[in-house]
Amino acid sequence: MNFTIKNALSPVKEGYTTLDIQVMEGIITQVGQNLNVIGTLIDGQDKLVLPGFFNAHTHSVEKWQRGIIPPLPLELWLAHLCDFAPLDMERVYLSALGTGVETLLSGGTSVVDHLVLIPGQELETIATVIRAYQTLGIRAFIAPLIQDEPLTAGMPEGKLLASHEYYCRSTDETLAIVEQAVINFHQPEKGTSILVGPTGIQLCTDALFTGCVALSDRYQLSRHSHLLETKAQEKLAAEKYECSAVKHLQEIGFLDEKTSLAHGVWLNDTDIEILALTKSTIVHNPLSNLRLGSGIAPILKCLRAGVNISFGCDGASSNDSQDLLEAIKIGSILHNITDPDYRSWITPKQSVEMACLGGAKGLGVHNHLGSITVGKKADLVLYDLTALSLLPRTDPIGLLVLGRPVNVIDSVWVDGRPIVVNGKLTTIDIDELRQELFDRSGWEAGRESPTLGKIESHYRRIMSLST
Amino acid sequence: MNFTIKNALSPVKEGYTTLDIQVMEGIITQVGQNLNVIGTLIDGQDKLVLPGFFNAHTHSVEKWQRGIIPPLPLELWLAHLCDFAPLDMERVYLSALGTGVETLLSGGTSVVDHLVLIPGQELETIATVIRAYQTLGIRAFIAPLIQDEPLTAGMPEGKLLASHEYYCRSTDETLAIVEQAVINFHQPEKGTSILVGPTGIQLCTDALFTGCVALSDRYQLSRHSHLLETKAQEKLAAEKYECSAVKHLQEIGFLDEKTSLAHGVWLNDTDIEILALTKSTIVHNPLSNLRLGSGIAPILKCLRAGVNISFGCDGASSNDSQDLLEAIKIGSILHNITDPDYRSWITPKQSVEMACLGGAKGLGVHNHLGSITVGKKADLVLYDLTALSLLPRTDPIGLLVLGRPVNVIDSVWVDGRPIVVNGKLTTIDIDELRQELFDRSGWEAGRESPTLGKIESHYRRIMSLST
Repeated sequence: MNFTIKNALSPVKEGYTTLDIQVMEGIITQVGQNLNVIGTLIDGQDKLVLPGFFNAHTHSVEKWQRGIIPPLPLELWLAHLCDFAPLDMERVYLSALGTGVETLLSGGTSVVDHLVLIPGQELETIATVIRAYQTLGIRAFIAPLIQDEPLTAGMPEGKLLASHEYYCRSTDETLAIVEQAVINFHQPEKGTSILVGPTGIQLCTDALFTGCVALSDRYQLSRHSHLLETKAQEKLAAEKYECSAVKHLQEIGFLDEKTSLAHGVWLNDTDIEILALTKSTIVHNPLSNLRLGSGIAPILKCLRAGVNISFGCDGASSNDSQDLLEAIKIGSILHNITDPDYRSWITPKQSVEMACLGGAKGLGVHNHLGSITVGKKADLVLYDLTALSLLPRTDPIGLLVLGRPVNVIDSVWVDGRPIVVNGKLTTIDIDELRQELFDRSGWEAGRESPTLGKIESHYRRIMSLST
Repeated sequence: MNFTIKNALSPVKEGYTTLDIQVMEGIITQVGQNLNVIGTLIDGQDKLVLPGFFNAHTHSVEKWQRGIIPPLPLELWLAHLCDFAPLDMERVYLSALGTGVETLLSGGTSVVDHLVLIPGQELETIATVIRAYQTLGIRAFIAPLIQDEPLTAGMPEGKLLASHEYYCRSTDETLAIVEQAVINFHQPEKGTSILVGPTGIQLCTDALFTGCVALSDRYQLSRHSHLLETKAQEKLAAEKYECSAVKHLQEIGFLDEKTSLAHGVWLNDTDIEILALTKSTIVHNPLSNLRLGSGIAPILKCLRAGVNISFGCDGASSNDSQDLLEAIKIGSILHNITDPDYRSWITPKQSVEMACLGGAKGLGVHNHLGSITVGKKADLVLYDLTALSLLPRTDPIGLLVLGRPVNVIDSVWVDGRPIVVNGKLTTIDIDELRQELFDRSGWEAGRESPTLGKIESHYRRIMSLST
């Protein structure tokens, strides 16, 4: 579809301008004032146009457990998560759909799904979420979540745990699954990319990491992993490598300009230098970092050092939402308490650039995405500036980032395809999705996790908590 | 109006139950199962019923500047705010209306408006917001924001500032205005209360505080003030009193069980003991504390010491929203990073109790409000648990507090009067409000504050920031 947006507000260096944007066959072909209308006319009056944000780290399947896991740190929260993980494809499909919808309705046009795989049905899991994202029309980066060590290995002194067992699948088998997923599904030009996605240093051997590097090099895949989310992981890295996790990842060649790492809460200054040097990206997930008590990632330090930053919602049971505008707001203002010099605080315009171009850079796709530039793909969002939550009128991006925008998405295009029109999704029936989510779930409370009971005393000991 | 809610989900000690609630003439008359329907039948199926939250600290007029003030600490942010404060009654009316609407649509039934008064039109300002809140139907606690020292006195070593001048109104004149407001407008039984509301130690003499105490005693008024929002205020208190601000407020008799104090970011352990001893309340405003870089209030320590806590949005230009559910979420999860022992972390149910009963206690009205109890006033909210943002179904209060609920308010009653029905306000026309807010404002960016230029170098010096 070809279209021309007329007279939408758009940020410039100082303030705003009104802009026309021509889109032909999914590509931005002209940007300027007084452009001719090619294709459908889109009235941008009283609307703000921005590139689509990247939801640069999430786990779609967690949606089935949002709101139910008690306030716990990551290592114990994981026990709950794993004990009650849903295991059927219908749920996998619906949670991907729901994650995509909430991302779109909060300004996102791309989602990075660090995808939990159902054991024995790995490729089917991947195929299922791709079907959901393609049906919905959101751009999807699927990083199959892989590990080759058991959950108990993820804790310092984890080998002491009685339940420590070998992981169910060998490293080679796991890498073979990822390679097959690449062969079957990696079609960036059609809006679906496969990433290599080792879980993180806490659950992966070096062999898995270097196997991922080899696949990434062979197929030009972006790389994605968790990194130093918790204090416990910092301890574990010291145990495992006798150096920092970042140093180790650099040494084994995992870090490059298309590597994005979720969290980075426990980075030290040397780590930050390495990330800047290797042009790696930190995906900031402020809400899950708070919810799990992980800490505050040193984002201002990273920015000063030149590290690229993007925003993620993280999985919906550690957040517990998929609202990108919420993640962007909190991920911006949270850091004001970490530096008394307000001159380094993140401005709303900077936040938007991190969410757009920062997201694209983290995936190595900034030549095609992340800004409103002639020749780039038309992943665009129009915000309705007459929505109550954006009134009275002041600074549009200030309102969007610092406020609490509700019902503000007027239109969304992905690859030039209209996914949201007049605030309504064009590709799926929201009421049907609601009904499915409702029917396949029930009210719950006070759920007990058997695994939690097994590992809690170990966790309290290694974290020096009173018993 | 009499009505009976049937079969709504309601939290009990362990999990949830379905509840019927009978309301007659604004009072909850029966709570239980299988109650007869008196008056209108309200179907509670797939809905959660909670007492209304308290938006326990805000400044409605700030709404005109939300999204526009750059990232700055309180003392410099105030310069922007004051330089561009709107000065007409129509704007005062509309921002109160908007503040009330956003509070209602995020689960609040009471608002504490620490109300900026237009000089020379103080009583008219108060009358105007009361008209707005009464038209809308929200319960209002109006604390006229009073001071008797000029803005520059609010900074450490502020007397050094060249622009330091005496305040425009004498202490006695100011107290006379508050007393007149009490005589004219204080009608708690009609849903409008006047509070004494000295701005805070940074801008008030002891004479103003003790004058407020006298008025509070004479008319049984609740007391409200800011307290230790910033590091600079902590320094100022040491300069001014040679003891902590809390100790000083205790000594002059300002602290009692109907005193609520906004922020308390820089409380020390002794301060917390004093607050517990005097049964004072801290109103936690997490979003403005982050936005202004003030810090993290020691809420877990307060709770352990038995200090009552409630939640506020704070004014909409330091937040920059009036969404109580957002304040409750961030005000709950933020503290997980302050204590590694997760057993002290705030649970979603605890948050709800703080937002309801905590809010009522802070205003000394917990005998009438803050819980679903026979004999209390019917300030009730029904949440639609079939909304997309609350699906799939898990723990209803977990979803509400930890998620990002959007469009979830089904019904709201204040004093038994239906204010929201089927998600729509019954008392005002939202589209008219939007149009008014739109018409009286314009897109802005890059606003320069003349006062900021005058005080910034002083601020940087006293806060030991590089120049």
